[in-house]
Amino acid sequence: MRLRNKPWADDYLRENNHIVVQEPFSMKGKWKELFNDPDHPLHLEIGSGKGQFIAGMGAQHDDVNFIGVELVKNVIVGALKKVLEAGVENVRLVNQDANDLRELFQSNEIDHIYLNFSDPWPKNRHEKRRLTFHTFLSQYEDVLVPGGEITLKTDNKGLFEYSLVSFSEYGMILEDVSVDLHAEEDPLNISTEYEQKFSAKGQPIYRCRVRFQS
Amino acid sequence: MRLRNKPWADDYLRENNHIVVQEPFSMKGKWKELFNDPDHPLHLEIGSGKGQFIAGMGAQHDDVNFIGVELVKNVIVGALKKVLEAGVENVRLVNQDANDLRELFQSNEIDHIYLNFSDPWPKNRHEKRRLTFHTFLSQYEDVLVPGGEITLKTDNKGLFEYSLVSFSEYGMILEDVSVDLHAEEDPLNISTEYEQKFSAKGQPIYRCRVRFQS
Repeated sequence: MRLRNKPWADDYLRENNHIVVQEPFSMKGKWKELFNDPDHPLHLEIGSGKGQFIAGMGAQHDDVNFIGVELVKNVIVGALKKVLEAGVENVRLVNQDANDLRELFQSNEIDHIYLNFSDPWPKNRHEKRRLTFHTFLSQYEDVLVPGGEITLKTDNKGLFEYSLVSFSEYGMILEDVSVDLHAEEDPLNISTEYEQKFSAKGQPIYRCRVRFQS
Repeated sequence: MRLRNKPWADDYLRENNHIVVQEPFSMKGKWKELFNDPDHPLHLEIGSGKGQFIAGMGAQHDDVNFIGVELVKNVIVGALKKVLEAGVENVRLVNQDANDLRELFQSNEIDHIYLNFSDPWPKNRHEKRRLTFHTFLSQYEDVLVPGGEITLKTDNKGLFEYSLVSFSEYGMILEDVSVDLHAEEDPLNISTEYEQKFSAKGQPIYRCRVRFQS
């Protein structure tokens, strides 16, 4: 998908600095302070896209604080719009590359990580770029609390199978898995834009929840 | 499915006692001795049905010895027919309830277990009957060598999801997984009769290989 340039994006993100964190690296170790209820658990979505998931999760779980990281400026403006429309106060957005989470977050700072429809990097030689490669798992383990969890959703068979094996080899415990998420009604599932589109085409959506051994 | 009674079954099984083991409990600890090459690894299929899988595996892997256990007499006669037709010498059949494998096999006697299209027992109150409930895993761990493996195939979403979680909670390592086995060509996959039928209808077939920690 070629993205149209949005010349107003910079201003829009800056004007909404109550949602879009302007100097994210300076927040390392202090993310909780951004929220009205700093004692609530902190959940992180990597690759928030147009924000349907994180805005929906924010509205569904007012006892959780959410941070959505999205690299692409012309995409995160959509997420900002969704968060503003939802009127939720427990969501913050970060327009930043999340390539090393340890630069953004301190050890034990996050309770749960969501990986939604991450790039599958299907070629073997790109294995290291998959967000469930062991070097990434090691980052997640660092920034998560002991026993912290990851929820992965994808429509990509290869990425899903790879990730299940990678989690297991890392010693993580599988807590829940669905090989066809939309086969049954799950009133608590918040779909991403991508998920909605591909599920409507009859494509199975895969999901698992895993935890690090504490 | 109502099975027709086959009055000739008893004679047929008895006459082929070079394939059908007549007193299986007496073989505990001595199964290897039944084969031409007693040093080959010993693989066990639980619920061999009409035998397409075990006869095919026997032909494909002449460096492995196979034992197929099937409770239903009128079904195992089909397996015997397939094994005789295949002319393989590395397959033995057992017409016996496999409810406690430790009565049939000694510790460390088996290298690999196949669970093919086991009864899913979908109701929660029947969880204990599923062949991947932890009490069964404990039996498998006993009769398998340290680091021994299980391969599970099923078309049942619920049983597959349950089993992945059960394996993981038991501390087993996921080595390989497919959430749609027939989406790609796997020239080494030997289908069961059931698998062939359901896969032809477009139903995804699920498979995983797990190992016990040694």
